[in-house]
Amino acid sequence: MPHTPAESFPLIAAIDLGSNSFHMVLAKADHGEIRILERLGDKVQLAAGIDEQRLLSEEAMQRGLDCLRRFAQLTASLPEGAVRVVGTNALREARNRGEFIRRAEEILGHPVEVISGREEARLIYLGVSHSIADTPGKRLVADIGGGSTEFIIGQRFEPMLRESLQMGCVSFTQRFFKDGKITPARYAQAYTAARLEIMGIEHALRRLGWEDAVGASGTIKAIGLTIQAAGLGSGEVNAEGLAWLKRKVFKIGDAEKLDLDGIKVDRRGIFPAGLAILEAIFDACDIQRMSHSEGALREGVLYDLLGRHQHEDVRERTLSSLMERYHVDLEQAARVESKALSALGKVAEDWQLQDDCHRELLSWAAKVHEVGLDIAHYQYHKHGAYLVEHSDLSGFSRQDQQMLALLVRGHRRNIPKDKFADFGAEGIKLMRLCVLLRFAILFHHIRGSQEMPEVQLKAREQSLEIQFPDGWLANNPLTQADFTQEAEWLKRIGVELSVR
Amino acid sequence: MPHTPAESFPLIAAIDLGSNSFHMVLAKADHGEIRILERLGDKVQLAAGIDEQRLLSEEAMQRGLDCLRRFAQLTASLPEGAVRVVGTNALREARNRGEFIRRAEEILGHPVEVISGREEARLIYLGVSHSIADTPGKRLVADIGGGSTEFIIGQRFEPMLRESLQMGCVSFTQRFFKDGKITPARYAQAYTAARLEIMGIEHALRRLGWEDAVGASGTIKAIGLTIQAAGLGSGEVNAEGLAWLKRKVFKIGDAEKLDLDGIKVDRRGIFPAGLAILEAIFDACDIQRMSHSEGALREGVLYDLLGRHQHEDVRERTLSSLMERYHVDLEQAARVESKALSALGKVAEDWQLQDDCHRELLSWAAKVHEVGLDIAHYQYHKHGAYLVEHSDLSGFSRQDQQMLALLVRGHRRNIPKDKFADFGAEGIKLMRLCVLLRFAILFHHIRGSQEMPEVQLKAREQSLEIQFPDGWLANNPLTQADFTQEAEWLKRIGVELSVR
Repeated sequence: MPHTPAESFPLIAAIDLGSNSFHMVLAKADHGEIRILERLGDKVQLAAGIDEQRLLSEEAMQRGLDCLRRFAQLTASLPEGAVRVVGTNALREARNRGEFIRRAEEILGHPVEVISGREEARLIYLGVSHSIADTPGKRLVADIGGGSTEFIIGQRFEPMLRESLQMGCVSFTQRFFKDGKITPARYAQAYTAARLEIMGIEHALRRLGWEDAVGASGTIKAIGLTIQAAGLGSGEVNAEGLAWLKRKVFKIGDAEKLDLDGIKVDRRGIFPAGLAILEAIFDACDIQRMSHSEGALREGVLYDLLGRHQHEDVRERTLSSLMERYHVDLEQAARVESKALSALGKVAEDWQLQDDCHRELLSWAAKVHEVGLDIAHYQYHKHGAYLVEHSDLSGFSRQDQQMLALLVRGHRRNIPKDKFADFGAEGIKLMRLCVLLRFAILFHHIRGSQEMPEVQLKAREQSLEIQFPDGWLANNPLTQADFTQEAEWLKRIGVELSVR
Repeated sequence: MPHTPAESFPLIAAIDLGSNSFHMVLAKADHGEIRILERLGDKVQLAAGIDEQRLLSEEAMQRGLDCLRRFAQLTASLPEGAVRVVGTNALREARNRGEFIRRAEEILGHPVEVISGREEARLIYLGVSHSIADTPGKRLVADIGGGSTEFIIGQRFEPMLRESLQMGCVSFTQRFFKDGKITPARYAQAYTAARLEIMGIEHALRRLGWEDAVGASGTIKAIGLTIQAAGLGSGEVNAEGLAWLKRKVFKIGDAEKLDLDGIKVDRRGIFPAGLAILEAIFDACDIQRMSHSEGALREGVLYDLLGRHQHEDVRERTLSSLMERYHVDLEQAARVESKALSALGKVAEDWQLQDDCHRELLSWAAKVHEVGLDIAHYQYHKHGAYLVEHSDLSGFSRQDQQMLALLVRGHRRNIPKDKFADFGAEGIKLMRLCVLLRFAILFHHIRGSQEMPEVQLKAREQSLEIQFPDGWLANNPLTQADFTQEAEWLKRIGVELSVR
């Protein structure tokens, strides 16, 4: 994503590939705030198209891609970096997500990112906190999605605790209400399953505490509206209304017949599951009243995008705290980063590494390449890669984390050629970034205890030439030996390194 | 290892399965100090018997086992927990170490542990600090082994920095002096390779600094003695002596002809490599003088063993700092530990879990089962297992860490049956410990927000019966649902769980 001033992006868009529905919002950035110009949505029910082998059916893919074709009419003309497309639980789950993503990117012309549950929670909170009154107390935000439910406790614009649980109104409908029949026994099963899921985080939520409970997502909005239509509130969800609604739903006994004000026809099927989950949340957290926020994930994605354009990139903060937490030698990281980026400048054209995303990735990798040292010295590049791949890194997509982890993994010793190949056409570029990172690390192997000279770099398709000042290498046999050893490692990935 | 008072162990022994030689020391514990009664050693040269596929040859195994048969005459009669046997770099490297360990344990009748490089460094420092004068300044300790070289900076009895590098006098002899010929060019290659290895830690060593340099290991002792015999010192290694010795060795030109006072015949072959490594250490760390300590790894192992018997178990400290570092909910860990141990008490006999090591392992696992939460909530049991397996945990052997990691891995969701099977006959017991850990966690799933009742436990070969007080479960349907789900997980590993 390029760091270009906001002015160059009069229009920005967020697309949310949810487990229940796909949504798009198109907006205009206006002095740090966002004005929504257009909203589109479609009940794609992606989660319902995932089978027991965790494969997304062709039919479900088609439903999703058809929807994206409509969205694409509005986003196709927007420049790179102005549109962010995020996939959530259904795509986290589907083993063949790669195929769907490839086809979606072809249609949209913008990259599709799959985000982790906690990243989703962060973005939801960002959207909610920009959409409701800015009160000083702590808030509990719950968002019941199709495949996962997010919980956040935050204050003003800062999330303090983010959790994502594997329960949603689509997946619970399939488990407990597949044929649409609603019985107290089935409802109790769904409710208990939700309580068990929540149990793992209940204690942490209560310990932190909150003043207001806010719900996001269509499920909570629909329940609030139904309760309001019955004269039991003014749009919020309350315990009394929930109790009434549950009795009402039992009486009707069939999801298809839920002809109540506030429930749209295409929501009827998933309504009972959503109700059971919400009741479980109310009981587990002892909530009496939950207001509703219109803004959630999509708005959060827009605000996050706006921040990136305005140089308030949350990813930089995330990496700083990762470095601090794992006691990275900051001076060394800065030296390596600076050298790597200057090397990139010299070879970017010849190695087709001119996109901003390449520069960013190399800079990130230089910052965090030593995080694994804090676990153990032995094979620390592997520990670092594990941490980068699996930690909750705010602002990063899964793909970002996987690419970054691979650079960390390959920064010393053997370069895992196969793993780079997994990234397809981008793999060769990633490998070149890895070569540049390794060069910068070797160059500063002695860590600031020696003044290093200026060098010339020349890249060709399968080779890299490094030229030291005349006579310098002869006087520094350790550096010479270091690069001789490096030439052996690079030979194994088909890159010829010559050092003079 | 049992926690029995020191008095019940009048004799303790340490066996060090080094890459160059095997050693045994037999000692008597005496008011927190150790009196060595017997020392045995044998130049087994295990590292020389490892081929390029990292397989230990049958011949090398036989050399090692023959040596252990001699040691066994002294240790066979000692009780469980009085003998500690540690393997270092050659066994860390050898892929078929499992076979060697099995045969060695048969001969010795005591467990053989393979320890990590940093654990080796910790034990070396423990041995050195008990063997030399107790001065207040910081010390740099270097120990050149057959396959690895350890560096420690410490003060009094506390190590502050521990490193282990993959270079040793046996492995370097094979790389650079295989036929015994000594030329300045080969020596320079060995020297440079050592400098490159040290480069990765040089900066960290210098940043911490030290007042005295102390060498352990036969290589450093032999070099000091040779220098002394030439009239250039009194047993310590100094820069002048090293320079003289290098010229002398070049002049002789053949390892087999190194007929110098201070070098035993069976050390001649590995002497040039050891000299090159030591010179590299002197230059990299800018050392002028290095004294020698008789005590090292073996003595460290004895002192560590003594600490365990006297309830100063370094492993407890290690786990406390791991829990602190990864922000474990200490109250919950204590609740789970207490419940798990009380459950163990009730089923230990029926499930053959009566050894102290089972109790210890369960207690450790309860303490650290949640460390992975600090990386991410999603699949945190796997992150926790990774941290436990790969972190430098002082006092733990690799096998300890692997078993502990497996219990952490299996503490929730699916129980990886195959991974337990990897532990052979011990696997079934480990799996039973895992079942008890899971029981304790489920029992306290609500984390202290609820008073839990006393329950009865009854274990049979393939089943576990839990009996709650009459009527309690009916009033606590969440706990009931939790255990119903657990019964499904346990069914997959062939354990029938019944809950009443």
